[in-house]
Amino acid sequence: MKFIGRDVLSAKDFTREEVDYIIQKAQDIAADIAQPTPRYRDILKGKVLAALFFEPSTRTRLSFETAMLKLGGGVTGFASSEVSSIRKGETLADTIRTVSSYADVLVMRHDKEGAQRLAAQNASIPVINAGSGAGEHPTQAMLDLLTIKAELGKIDGLTIGLVGDLKYGRTVHSLAYFLSQYDVNLYFISPTTLAMQNRVLESLTMKRVKFKQTNVLQKTIPELDVLYMTRIQKERFVDTEEFQRVKSAFVLTAEDLVNAREKMIVLHPLPRVDEINPNVDSTKHARYFQQVRYGLYLRMALLALILGGLK
Amino acid sequence: MKFIGRDVLSAKDFTREEVDYIIQKAQDIAADIAQPTPRYRDILKGKVLAALFFEPSTRTRLSFETAMLKLGGGVTGFASSEVSSIRKGETLADTIRTVSSYADVLVMRHDKEGAQRLAAQNASIPVINAGSGAGEHPTQAMLDLLTIKAELGKIDGLTIGLVGDLKYGRTVHSLAYFLSQYDVNLYFISPTTLAMQNRVLESLTMKRVKFKQTNVLQKTIPELDVLYMTRIQKERFVDTEEFQRVKSAFVLTAEDLVNAREKMIVLHPLPRVDEINPNVDSTKHARYFQQVRYGLYLRMALLALILGGLK
Amino acid sequence: MKFIGRDVLSAKDFTREEVDYIIQKAQDIAADIAQPTPRYRDILKGKVLAALFFEPSTRTRLSFETAMLKLGGGVTGFASSEVSSIRKGETLADTIRTVSSYADVLVMRHDKEGAQRLAAQNASIPVINAGSGAGEHPTQAMLDLLTIKAELGKIDGLTIGLVGDLKYGRTVHSLAYFLSQYDVNLYFISPTTLAMQNRVLESLTMKRVKFKQTNVLQKTIPELDVLYMTRIQKERFVDTEEFQRVKSAFVLTAEDLVNAREKMIVLHPLPRVDEINPNVDSTKHARYFQQVRYGLYLRMALLALILGGLK
Repeated sequence: MKFIGRDVLSAKDFTREEVDYIIQKAQDIAADIAQPTPRYRDILKGKVLAALFFEPSTRTRLSFETAMLKLGGGVTGFASSEVSSIRKGETLADTIRTVSSYADVLVMRHDKEGAQRLAAQNASIPVINAGSGAGEHPTQAMLDLLTIKAELGKIDGLTIGLVGDLKYGRTVHSLAYFLSQYDVNLYFISPTTLAMQNRVLESLTMKRVKFKQTNVLQKTIPELDVLYMTRIQKERFVDTEEFQRVKSAFVLTAEDLVNAREKMIVLHPLPRVDEINPNVDSTKHARYFQQVRYGLYLRMALLALILGGLK
Repeated sequence: MKFIGRDVLSAKDFTREEVDYIIQKAQDIAADIAQPTPRYRDILKGKVLAALFFEPSTRTRLSFETAMLKLGGGVTGFASSEVSSIRKGETLADTIRTVSSYADVLVMRHDKEGAQRLAAQNASIPVINAGSGAGEHPTQAMLDLLTIKAELGKIDGLTIGLVGDLKYGRTVHSLAYFLSQYDVNLYFISPTTLAMQNRVLESLTMKRVKFKQTNVLQKTIPELDVLYMTRIQKERFVDTEEFQRVKSAFVLTAEDLVNAREKMIVLHPLPRVDEINPNVDSTKHARYFQQVRYGLYLRMALLALILGGLK
Repeated sequence: MKFIGRDVLSAKDFTREEVDYIIQKAQDIAADIAQPTPRYRDILKGKVLAALFFEPSTRTRLSFETAMLKLGGGVTGFASSEVSSIRKGETLADTIRTVSSYADVLVMRHDKEGAQRLAAQNASIPVINAGSGAGEHPTQAMLDLLTIKAELGKIDGLTIGLVGDLKYGRTVHSLAYFLSQYDVNLYFISPTTLAMQNRVLESLTMKRVKFKQTNVLQKTIPELDVLYMTRIQKERFVDTEEFQRVKSAFVLTAEDLVNAREKMIVLHPLPRVDEINPNVDSTKHARYFQQVRYGLYLRMALLALILGGLK
């Protein structure tokens, strides 16, 4: 396994062994960071992360920046394309060549799928995909795996339900690719019009992953060890009434969890709008805010590995 | 006195002993920072401040960020809500829970009074109020006290005039609360329509603070040891003519200072627009730019105390 | 030579000896930064750079920020005037006095020529001009010199062509001022309506610099050791047809380089739009992306010298 200098563009670029190794390192860092003087806090001293967010994102940007800072590195970049000079008409390739001439790693969000791959082709430094249109969001999916592993002790053998907009949801695409390397049962729970993309289903079939598709959330809950909720966006619907009807069928409340398995956990990539009722927050199943914390550890591990901070 | 992990939401949350202690620490830091190798410059290494400015503010944000950096900590956050992903419809409570999952301290400005208290209820880390609508701005008021103490050697026994928009001015609210713990004489000098809020006056009366209200600035100046100017905003007036008339009565010029006490100091939370004529800048009374520097020391002391950087 | 505390406002403020010294230090830093543990990576610890970009600029801002971070310093500031509180009506002088009360160096871009000089008059800390309207951009020109020196081994004796909008191009103004201190032959190659400003030409004449003016690019190329391309902006033309005609005469393609000298190098301050065809990128002459990297070293050297990080 070689991580130094490596791009993180798609979940498909990583083997199970690599993902397991990253998760292990993230757990080491989680233990270390709790110490009064963390061993890792200076390992990226002198390195600079450039956060290029062509599309704004508070949580992902702040999570990466905090991860870099807590390893002793520095951070520069922009929070939205409006405050950059992109408007001057430069190509993306040129912007990337420029920034990669002084920074040490690029973390990039873009509304166009494929933008990160184009960036990686032009960059002399590693590029990390921090969300690409309706494409992928591999570090979110890695932190989802870390959360499952840390909270349930394993990934193999679990039944995992992915809920919501499976067609355009980049997080669930990346997560499904990763999970296809484990021995899991998957449920894809979505409105029919927002079902999981065929390219993902085909990839799962090829890898002989067991999955079912359904548009009924409540009835499926008792089967699950992990319930992964996502948002359904209004923009996906032509008809507002149709949106309201569909959306309300994929809302989770505390009442829906009465028949859930004892140790079942509810995850969500956040932000949530109203697909998880706040009364779920205080149930024993809610883990979506812990998930954010695991995200910090995961990104610290990934940055440390890619930039050579860990042996 | 316990500072570690503490929120800074309102001037009312601090005793005089605590404020005096913070001021003392700020003065220690001011002395230390002048050294070639400051003792404090690494004490917050590995810690990260998240600056959440839902309302833009150059001076307060940069002051907090600089304070954190000069103690060895790191900084992340957003400078205005437009460049964050708040628009996705997430509740403030969720945003706060998320950010507090990776940062170590939150510094927050918001146009709604009460937003910081809501944040503190949802945060697992300390929250510092960096200005809340027409509510409070406690760290500004702390740095005002530090400036008075450092420049005049004491706070007890002084006569202090607060001038301008006392109704909506969050800085003067916080300052009045703090001053109510000292043995001072207060003058509230404002247009009648922008007089100090009753809730503040009642709090002062309860604490037996001596105060007078007036709408005449020039005549009051000779009585004062500290003249604290603030801005009167056009938005507060329905009638533009009324605004012009009122405003011009609360403008300070060098000529107004001829009968001022020898050591009287003029302060202002800044930015000023035209309520202090630039000809005041070169008088011996002007201290509003030194005040900015004291702000750095005050915020360094506060961050160090809250994050456990000082014993 | 004294650098500590010094402003960098105009190329005219520096002697040749000073520029050569800065270039030498930049080359030292370039060698040092390639080491596993760079000697310079902590020399600005505890210092804070405030980047005040009243006009957005990705490349210059990120370059300065990265330079500061790689020397161990911290960074604060704003990326565009929209996310600052400038709108509150404060004067530029007050903003500068405020920020210079806590930061250690100001890096400033502004759309008004003269803004940086005004800033320097009001700042208690050094001010670096990071681009001022159609005025100057001295650190860009310094990095251009460093690139020429590092790539060709010398500056004296070279024939250098500056191409494009020489009237409004701030970069070429600063570069021409610097080059006037060396023994060079200059070609100013531009549309007649965008010819080099008289104030610059007069300054060159006074210093007895050999220069020629022409509006023909292709024919001049075989004469050159350095071809410095810049952008021609549509906004400069009343007539769109005229713009199209003019622009296409100042576009560089790989074919134009067949008669170029063996070691001739093509530079560009970037961003380019279409004045350099991408087919030039893979020729042996292209150096515009290396130029970006030299910019990092140059700014590291300058910050280190000004803030006293180097003896």
